[in-house]
Amino acid sequence: MEVSLLEEVENILRYRFRNKKLLEEALTHSSFLDGVSYERLEFVGDPVLSLAISNYLFLAYPDLDPGQLSALRAANVSTEKLARVAVRIGLHRFVRHSAPPLVDKVERFVDAVKLEINPVAHGGSVKAPKVLADVVESVAAAIYVDVNFDLQTLWVIMRGVLEPIVTPDALEKQPQPVTMLYEMCQKKGKQVDIKPSREGDLSVAKVFVDGEFVASASSSQKDHAKLEAAKIALGKLAHLVPSTDKKSATNMKLNFAADENVLKRIQVPLMKRNLSAQFRFQLLMVFFKCLGMKNLG
Amino acid sequence: MEVSLLEEVENILRYRFRNKKLLEEALTHSSFLDGVSYERLEFVGDPVLSLAISNYLFLAYPDLDPGQLSALRAANVSTEKLARVAVRIGLHRFVRHSAPPLVDKVERFVDAVKLEINPVAHGGSVKAPKVLADVVESVAAAIYVDVNFDLQTLWVIMRGVLEPIVTPDALEKQPQPVTMLYEMCQKKGKQVDIKPSREGDLSVAKVFVDGEFVASASSSQKDHAKLEAAKIALGKLAHLVPSTDKKSATNMKLNFAADENVLKRIQVPLMKRNLSAQFRFQLLMVFFKCLGMKNLG
Repeated sequence: MEVSLLEEVENILRYRFRNKKLLEEALTHSSFLDGVSYERLEFVGDPVLSLAISNYLFLAYPDLDPGQLSALRAANVSTEKLARVAVRIGLHRFVRHSAPPLVDKVERFVDAVKLEINPVAHGGSVKAPKVLADVVESVAAAIYVDVNFDLQTLWVIMRGVLEPIVTPDALEKQPQPVTMLYEMCQKKGKQVDIKPSREGDLSVAKVFVDGEFVASASSSQKDHAKLEAAKIALGKLAHLVPSTDKKSATNMKLNFAADENVLKRIQVPLMKRNLSAQFRFQLLMVFFKCLGMKNLG
Repeated sequence: MEVSLLEEVENILRYRFRNKKLLEEALTHSSFLDGVSYERLEFVGDPVLSLAISNYLFLAYPDLDPGQLSALRAANVSTEKLARVAVRIGLHRFVRHSAPPLVDKVERFVDAVKLEINPVAHGGSVKAPKVLADVVESVAAAIYVDVNFDLQTLWVIMRGVLEPIVTPDALEKQPQPVTMLYEMCQKKGKQVDIKPSREGDLSVAKVFVDGEFVASASSSQKDHAKLEAAKIALGKLAHLVPSTDKKSATNMKLNFAADENVLKRIQVPLMKRNLSAQFRFQLLMVFFKCLGMKNLG
């Protein structure tokens, strides 16, 4: 891969790789004949992002219950979210592949995302191509390996890349349709059932409420079919939806500590991100204080 | 929680907590009225173990493809695997709860595990109670928070707790029944379909091959029903199973680097686990060499 292209990606990430081969690997789709594909890195990148986001949420929202934390994590590492990250920072322009159908898929998604006014947490008009989310995961893994498996440093670099991080407020405005459908029906004492099936190459999801057919949708991805069917069902059952009490969710944001040596290799001055030792200590104190109060309460 | 009980658990884990409240929290089920339950820690513990195992597998098996790595990871962090870890180290004796049905469930599982001769990767005669796997995850998270979110140090402590780590060889001897069923049918040009449904409180899974009913099973857990149905189907379709070529899988085992300061708080001398700086450097060199060779090849 041309050095100038790799440097362009490094500029986007604001990080200079010690081992450029890692970045090249992270940008190589399995269809590309030359070089190692990103799949092994993606294997690591998935739990890397999951734990980095989990740490952040665990520290930033001491008052959220585990269910709310899990919903927030899912929204922040979903294919829909990560594919939008790839488009926002322009990473999709650097993926090496030899799979022509990908070009059209990615272009249609990029066009659709450009028209989105508010961040979309659970899928917009065009399904997110998995390759885009995969590349964000594999790039995260490439950085993680390059910084010697130091998650704190990875987070300092990836925190900005993942913006906007989905907050409790944002999630409350866009609840997950399947969860919302189940919750709504449970409140109204109704039994909801989403039945999956296959029609040729497509996954079909049919929504039944109290045994009665309400909606169906199909997609090449099972989860996407379920999501779309739930959305349609929610539209049809809108008369049941209660007005929700908006909970005021804390919006505190914390960074993890970071290794000063590795920070020197991060290109752009990290004025806001690079935490002083004293601030790091204060953060940990706040965190343990929160834990302590909960234990005593 | 009594100090002597906490110390007993610390002895099992070979780790002394700075903040004992974290360990107490990790051992408290949501049914227990006093204190904070383990659910927030479990939220972090799940990706902690997932990333720790992923790092280990990524470094230890440079020749495995991503599919094999994913299968190995799944086997090492499954409910069945982690619940057996809890039983093996005796952690189940320290869980605080006020849910009497749990006692019977756990006892039946403990008795069944005692009768197992070989490690069971995908479920034995009695379904693993989720609470046992949850507690291993939350204890891992408690250690992780106590060592300031340092995954390398967490791994040094948890590596022994998680023994026996499922290796490629062990997994090959016990392939995942659902995967095996799909692979076997694909090889024979047959179409397999596992249809989930509900009967009262139970999940039911029915296996169809080329549209013909082959087997069914029910369980309170959907995945368990699917697994059991696949096992029965494999038994009935045994005449289709090809003799597999045993691949010789590498068994190299690596530890991550560890923070020397925190290691001092680990109770028992970690002669084998505590890596010298030189050895750590060698490990990283081996790893980058492998990566380099793959990139050049």
